[in-house]
Amino acid sequence: MASSARPAVVLVSGGLDSTTTLAMARADGFDCYALTIDYGQRHRRELEAAARIAAALGVSRNLIMPLDLRCFGGSALTADIPVPTSRDPKEMTDIPVTYVPARNTIFLALALAWAETLGAEDIFIGVNALDYSGYPDCRPEYIEAFEHLANLATKAGVEERSRFRVRMPLVALGKADIVRHAVKLGVDFAMTWSCYAPRADGRPCGVCDSCILRAKGFAEAGVQDPLTAAP
Amino acid sequence: MASSARPAVVLVSGGLDSTTTLAMARADGFDCYALTIDYGQRHRRELEAAARIAAALGVSRNLIMPLDLRCFGGSALTADIPVPTSRDPKEMTDIPVTYVPARNTIFLALALAWAETLGAEDIFIGVNALDYSGYPDCRPEYIEAFEHLANLATKAGVEERSRFRVRMPLVALGKADIVRHAVKLGVDFAMTWSCYAPRADGRPCGVCDSCILRAKGFAEAGVQDPLTAAP
Repeated sequence: MASSARPAVVLVSGGLDSTTTLAMARADGFDCYALTIDYGQRHRRELEAAARIAAALGVSRNLIMPLDLRCFGGSALTADIPVPTSRDPKEMTDIPVTYVPARNTIFLALALAWAETLGAEDIFIGVNALDYSGYPDCRPEYIEAFEHLANLATKAGVEERSRFRVRMPLVALGKADIVRHAVKLGVDFAMTWSCYAPRADGRPCGVCDSCILRAKGFAEAGVQDPLTAAP
Repeated sequence: MASSARPAVVLVSGGLDSTTTLAMARADGFDCYALTIDYGQRHRRELEAAARIAAALGVSRNLIMPLDLRCFGGSALTADIPVPTSRDPKEMTDIPVTYVPARNTIFLALALAWAETLGAEDIFIGVNALDYSGYPDCRPEYIEAFEHLANLATKAGVEERSRFRVRMPLVALGKADIVRHAVKLGVDFAMTWSCYAPRADGRPCGVCDSCILRAKGFAEAGVQDPLTAAP
């Protein structure tokens, strides 16, 4: 089966969005290569989640690539800047301090390099409506500019052997819709990880932006999140 | 002096082109931050050259960032593919096997991340006329597409605090012109390194594309290359 399917590179962080994106790419019949970047993020649990998810969803390969973005600093996810807590989603209108400079440009560039060597034309990324209210490099116009660049940047693009596409299956979805799609695709939410600042006992903090948005999504979808269920 | 100068990120590989680019950025009064990527290239001498050059040209910082592109493969510079030898420059019309998939997109994305955290708006890269006859990601239209992307991709760009520019001071120059500019700027050619496949005795091979183009440039400029002078 997998060998006749079209290959695709899927950026998998271990969170709810990228897991649902991977499940969608699989459901669309792609032979998936999961790329996870170990960029020195403080929420290391994310990386273990990514590896579990990639294995469970039967990817052809999961590449966990070390790339230490802490040497640049500038983000609450990579430097000594506090992760904000207990914010109302309505307050999350500015670009948050959890923004990592140029992160998606770096991740998409690495995905493009792998896609070119694999002979893949499709790159999947889990950006969505909620992200691009805050992060500049999650907006559709940004992703379209990257797609344009990808076809100028590569041997395969210039020789017209490939036409690279950056697929954003969640782009129009809010968090509750993502939860509903994930349920339909049989995603095991217990394997995913969203929290930026895990508690000492290994459970999600419940108060960072990522926990708050996840909780809101599950509540609106009427689904119980196994990560926050009473033990 | 340096503290009042505008900061710039300069991609420095250790070769003739990026060294001349760095010397030009310094001559233009920029406070330079040199970014060198240790991507697993077989010509490791390049990295030592980059560090020496950055120190000699008085950069504010030289960051040598490990990023192992060998995990993707696909290039004679990172995988077990022979480096071509003894080609006539006229034969070098196709995209060469020394092309590293999406390399400049990855390097520019990293430079952008650093620029954003430094508060720099300028990124220097040593692409030139000779490169873009072969490498897709050295062409001016590619660099312009990256510049457009950079301003969509970043918090600083979106909030209009910065307007990122990718500067290509060598873009219109051939190798002989680059040598002439470097002479005027006092570049010490003995510190640079171009060869893709150094000999066991540590001298340049003289037969890879990079050696051949370098030799042609020095010959046309009427300058003796100290790296190939008789011992």
